[in-house]
Amino acid sequence: MVKKKIRMGMIGGGHGSFIGILHRVAAYMGEDYNLVGGAFDFDYDRAKLFAEELELDLSRVYENIDVFIEKELALDKDTRIEVVVIVTPNFLHYSMAKKLIEAGFNVICEKPVTTTSAEALDLEALVEKNKVVFALTHTYTGYPMVRQMKTMIAKGIIGKIQKIDAQYYQGWINPVIHDKNERSKVWRLDPAKAGISSCMGDIGVHAFNMIEYTTGMKVKKVLSDLSTLYEDNALDVDGTVLLRMNDDVRGVIRSSQIATGEENNLQIAVYGTKGGFKWEQENPNYLYYFKEGEPYQVLKPGNPYNGDFAQESTKMAPGHPEGIFDSMGNIYKGTARAIRKESNIHEGSFPTINDGVRGMQFIEATVASSQNGNVWTEIS
Amino acid sequence: MVKKKIRMGMIGGGHGSFIGILHRVAAYMGEDYNLVGGAFDFDYDRAKLFAEELELDLSRVYENIDVFIEKELALDKDTRIEVVVIVTPNFLHYSMAKKLIEAGFNVICEKPVTTTSAEALDLEALVEKNKVVFALTHTYTGYPMVRQMKTMIAKGIIGKIQKIDAQYYQGWINPVIHDKNERSKVWRLDPAKAGISSCMGDIGVHAFNMIEYTTGMKVKKVLSDLSTLYEDNALDVDGTVLLRMNDDVRGVIRSSQIATGEENNLQIAVYGTKGGFKWEQENPNYLYYFKEGEPYQVLKPGNPYNGDFAQESTKMAPGHPEGIFDSMGNIYKGTARAIRKESNIHEGSFPTINDGVRGMQFIEATVASSQNGNVWTEIS
Amino acid sequence: MVKKKIRMGMIGGGHGSFIGILHRVAAYMGEDYNLVGGAFDFDYDRAKLFAEELELDLSRVYENIDVFIEKELALDKDTRIEVVVIVTPNFLHYSMAKKLIEAGFNVICEKPVTTTSAEALDLEALVEKNKVVFALTHTYTGYPMVRQMKTMIAKGIIGKIQKIDAQYYQGWINPVIHDKNERSKVWRLDPAKAGISSCMGDIGVHAFNMIEYTTGMKVKKVLSDLSTLYEDNALDVDGTVLLRMNDDVRGVIRSSQIATGEENNLQIAVYGTKGGFKWEQENPNYLYYFKEGEPYQVLKPGNPYNGDFAQESTKMAPGHPEGIFDSMGNIYKGTARAIRKESNIHEGSFPTINDGVRGMQFIEATVASSQNGNVWTEIS
Amino acid sequence: MVKKKIRMGMIGGGHGSFIGILHRVAAYMGEDYNLVGGAFDFDYDRAKLFAEELELDLSRVYENIDVFIEKELALDKDTRIEVVVIVTPNFLHYSMAKKLIEAGFNVICEKPVTTTSAEALDLEALVEKNKVVFALTHTYTGYPMVRQMKTMIAKGIIGKIQKIDAQYYQGWINPVIHDKNERSKVWRLDPAKAGISSCMGDIGVHAFNMIEYTTGMKVKKVLSDLSTLYEDNALDVDGTVLLRMNDDVRGVIRSSQIATGEENNLQIAVYGTKGGFKWEQENPNYLYYFKEGEPYQVLKPGNPYNGDFAQESTKMAPGHPEGIFDSMGNIYKGTARAIRKESNIHEGSFPTINDGVRGMQFIEATVASSQNGNVWTEIS
Repeated sequence: MVKKKIRMGMIGGGHGSFIGILHRVAAYMGEDYNLVGGAFDFDYDRAKLFAEELELDLSRVYENIDVFIEKELALDKDTRIEVVVIVTPNFLHYSMAKKLIEAGFNVICEKPVTTTSAEALDLEALVEKNKVVFALTHTYTGYPMVRQMKTMIAKGIIGKIQKIDAQYYQGWINPVIHDKNERSKVWRLDPAKAGISSCMGDIGVHAFNMIEYTTGMKVKKVLSDLSTLYEDNALDVDGTVLLRMNDDVRGVIRSSQIATGEENNLQIAVYGTKGGFKWEQENPNYLYYFKEGEPYQVLKPGNPYNGDFAQESTKMAPGHPEGIFDSMGNIYKGTARAIRKESNIHEGSFPTINDGVRGMQFIEATVASSQNGNVWTEIS
Repeated sequence: MVKKKIRMGMIGGGHGSFIGILHRVAAYMGEDYNLVGGAFDFDYDRAKLFAEELELDLSRVYENIDVFIEKELALDKDTRIEVVVIVTPNFLHYSMAKKLIEAGFNVICEKPVTTTSAEALDLEALVEKNKVVFALTHTYTGYPMVRQMKTMIAKGIIGKIQKIDAQYYQGWINPVIHDKNERSKVWRLDPAKAGISSCMGDIGVHAFNMIEYTTGMKVKKVLSDLSTLYEDNALDVDGTVLLRMNDDVRGVIRSSQIATGEENNLQIAVYGTKGGFKWEQENPNYLYYFKEGEPYQVLKPGNPYNGDFAQESTKMAPGHPEGIFDSMGNIYKGTARAIRKESNIHEGSFPTINDGVRGMQFIEATVASSQNGNVWTEIS
Repeated sequence: MVKKKIRMGMIGGGHGSFIGILHRVAAYMGEDYNLVGGAFDFDYDRAKLFAEELELDLSRVYENIDVFIEKELALDKDTRIEVVVIVTPNFLHYSMAKKLIEAGFNVICEKPVTTTSAEALDLEALVEKNKVVFALTHTYTGYPMVRQMKTMIAKGIIGKIQKIDAQYYQGWINPVIHDKNERSKVWRLDPAKAGISSCMGDIGVHAFNMIEYTTGMKVKKVLSDLSTLYEDNALDVDGTVLLRMNDDVRGVIRSSQIATGEENNLQIAVYGTKGGFKWEQENPNYLYYFKEGEPYQVLKPGNPYNGDFAQESTKMAPGHPEGIFDSMGNIYKGTARAIRKESNIHEGSFPTINDGVRGMQFIEATVASSQNGNVWTEIS
Repeated sequence: MVKKKIRMGMIGGGHGSFIGILHRVAAYMGEDYNLVGGAFDFDYDRAKLFAEELELDLSRVYENIDVFIEKELALDKDTRIEVVVIVTPNFLHYSMAKKLIEAGFNVICEKPVTTTSAEALDLEALVEKNKVVFALTHTYTGYPMVRQMKTMIAKGIIGKIQKIDAQYYQGWINPVIHDKNERSKVWRLDPAKAGISSCMGDIGVHAFNMIEYTTGMKVKKVLSDLSTLYEDNALDVDGTVLLRMNDDVRGVIRSSQIATGEENNLQIAVYGTKGGFKWEQENPNYLYYFKEGEPYQVLKPGNPYNGDFAQESTKMAPGHPEGIFDSMGNIYKGTARAIRKESNIHEGSFPTINDGVRGMQFIEATVASSQNGNVWTEIS
């Protein structure tokens, strides 16, 4: 029987949206979804142009979320969009998600889910009531080795957890924070747009999520020390949070946007009575497993020693970093430019037939040299 | 004006083909291509089922490459497939590419291009004559940091090259090579299927390609020492190749399929009169740049200090390994299973609304703790 | 003019004392000291035997510190011991140091200096009054790259400091802490022997010292969260400390003895307005320097790009880890065994003349092969 | 019974000799040797001054090796020097070793043992005939993890060896090699002083030695490709050597002095039928162990999972890089300067009593903060 693709809509994510393409590619990867329509832009003309490039049916491109819901609901259930991706600015997440859930759509929502926990609790109740699927894209939980860590901890392999340490250090705000005029222009530092927190709200919460995700434990209470660095700056750009988990287990989250030179340095370490784990987002293919009294081990994706969950989260053979898709994608991009006869294509944008010729000549010369007694052999 | 997607066809790559999905996702990534049809399988029923799942127009699904070419050529030029991806077994590459090029199609072909250099030269002549675009997917040349290395070498930043060293070590053949019966079943070791070489033909040639790609130099002659390990084994599973480049520059390629425990350890080091570079495929986001007399530098993708070519080859902000697409893809996969109400979904396959609630509660408690004088604050 | 060696005495450090040999070798390294005598052991016979093995003048081996002081003071100033190394159990440091300082000896004292800050302040006053040199062996401040970090921060290279993070994670107490009987036997957990703290007193204080050493800043106040893990355990085995430095700069120290699998993972990161630094004790030869807007750099000892202080703290050429002394020391140890005709010497304990023969044959064969046109050449 | 120290003499190694101090410290480390005398310098006055600083008995300081031998042989056997360290220029090693062996002294000789294999064979015969101990200081074989690798390979843990790859890359000659005048001044490139090889003779031979040491196998024949880079340069500065071991096992040595930016990058990888090992000299505390089908392991010194040979080659607890001796040595050096009241001592050359005070205050404040309910606590 044919496994049908899920009909997907998108709110936001049009021209120039990095997060939009990330979601579309992710949806494409498993060949589970089919993008059918959406309300991609507050500028309707731009939305239609965008949809045209994607070769979508323009009758499924809508002015806004209200029209989207109204028109889609009018469609037959077999045609209607089944899941809607929300990739609009943060402050719109709550109201849009609410409307979609109430209309019965499944929702995939970019992080943060809302701007307050009250709103989030409201959505939680609605999800339950309307029996829809709601996915929040805390991206880092999708890594194979994070899933392997979760699996092994759940199995009790490191025993009872006794210490948790997570870090999320970035330095991106450093170049602007020290100039009063510049920092006043950063939306992340504007409470009206970013809510009550910059550093904790944007990245500290990822560290928090990773702790609860991998350990299966809950944070019970926190004691924090946040810094805004300047008095005229309202929101935190740095902070340390002491954690008390269930069973009185101690933990700490360190998070910063002023760790100058750091890019996206998310790390998590969990120590138990029998062993420990460490994982780093910038090198996501390595899971460090400490076992009391033995040399530490390094687990990598795609190997049969991993559990089912990690294995099904990997498409590649061992040793291929997942980013190989992107690398292949770059070659396709270069080829597309050539097919379209675009100008100023970088030399080396894609391998040509000549690379094929050279390769075959290399192989033949190499085999000949060895067979003829290890002698120098020319490549024509 | 709307930028039209390129109409893409595919030969091979149907159900269960890992290489097929890699090419389709790569094609999707830049949103430059639209898969329109193909001859996906030698079993036509299976090909149609596969196409149905991809929601393709079944009239564009063909029995084989000959029917593909005949029917597509009969179509209007504005409808006809513009580029064809060849992802069939290696021994078919040559004949299929030949037919497609002669019919005027642009071609994207999996590696290796052919099984002999004579065939490759033949294709090269045909490409020139028919003025089509021919791309060979030497995947590793698509990495941003490989492209940055190429750019910096071309600019003369490390001066005149004086030493080149490339390695491609795998261990995958070790578990089968030592058993006579097992090794006789490996197609890579069968000259009828793999051509004249296993190790050099499959991976050594990548090291060769990376050398010519990054340095812009040509290998003039080789002296090699290949090993089949066992007398009854016809093809090499290991080898070292001494290189003489133009200008008498020395180099070496080391390649193995019996480097037990190695997964996909491709590395390249290039040393010049003013500096040097090192890059490793398993950690593709780091480019090590040695500058005579100074501390070495580590370049990473997405940073403005990179050149245009590397920058346009990156979709992500600095610090995000490219594999984040895959991580996000896993979350979409889990969500799809929930939408389809599949059973046995791993706990933690995608973050739910409850993760959203927890996150907002964490942020609020953290801000409150700090504002109230660093006191313990509960998370409800 | 001849540079005289400093006459050194030692209290404690006799047979079986690891810390004693560490101090003696360190004293030997710069060829600045000469061990002349001491009170090496509370068992006087054992002390004399030990001294005999070291070939010391037995008239300078004393029953205890009081005799040591009395007899040495009776000696001529040109003969008298100039500096005394204290390597006794922690609780004796204060009383011994006090006596020595009051008697006018320079002192080199193992860490911790005392068991209370009142005692330490007392010593500080005595040091000032008696105008002696007092060195406390916070070993990690001796690393070349730590000194380079200190120098560069002092020069303002990373601008104004805005965030400090230090870690000292060990797991050594994990195998014993979970058994009530076992943990009651650990002297580190006995307040009578270890003072008021285990984790902070033993290792957290190193992190603290490294922060003040490298940044030149002072910790003004702390907020800490220490854990004893079990109620019947009196002293902390884990803790996180929030720091407020001068100028309101934030910092954090994380320290643990229950980070299962960690060995001696001391790390320090300092971020400023223009850049940042990271250093790790387990890989002490690498100093990571982040410069806003540029690829990060990795500094290594012995290179002329380092400052004077780091350079004079290195004995080795670049690329030789300092541990090469130990490696050479092992070869000397093996040779000593052979000279003494000891039995059960490990094969390979030192290279023999046959290794020399093989090496020369290798060099000659290699040169011959290349000169004769890259042909196989046998090694006899 | 007292274990007597071995009486050691030294030829060469006086003022300004780096290699001399390396040998003296190594000899001191195990407290097995006592430096008694020598012929430290061809300038006898300088030799005596040097010996005075070391506080040696000047009657044991000799004009040259001939006087050394004559006078020492005249001494009673219980007083006579038992082992002589040769740290003179390379071309003198042979003649000096010969004299010493024939006179019945044990010898510790710096690398290279001689300048030809004929000379080395001659020494080998003499060593046998005179029944003396002869140690050649191939330093890298003294590392604990190299010894652990040797032990595990000998035990058959990685099965039958099937591939060996060693590298020794340096870049030190790059800054001088490209200027004809400069390169003519380098003694390493002068056949009269350096023998028949620069790169292979100085460092390639270490790679060779490491291969034979760790694997226990012998290199049977070589095929090499050496480069002098310039025609007027007589000796190799770069080369690759194909190896054929016993049992027809393949290997390769890559060695260079023009790998710009490399410092002392010696690496060895050995792959067998069941697993593999990798070790790098610049990070000598890590031994990478690949086991077919399992995550790879990382072994570190000092841990009980290591074998006897590695364990007895470590003085430190796990997690302390061996270089901690050097770090401690730097603190002693700084203290010596203070005791000698030298001027221009770097601030921070050694921790003072004030560091002790600060440390105790930190510990007390930290414990108080936690006990008082995690409140801010000042450090006076």
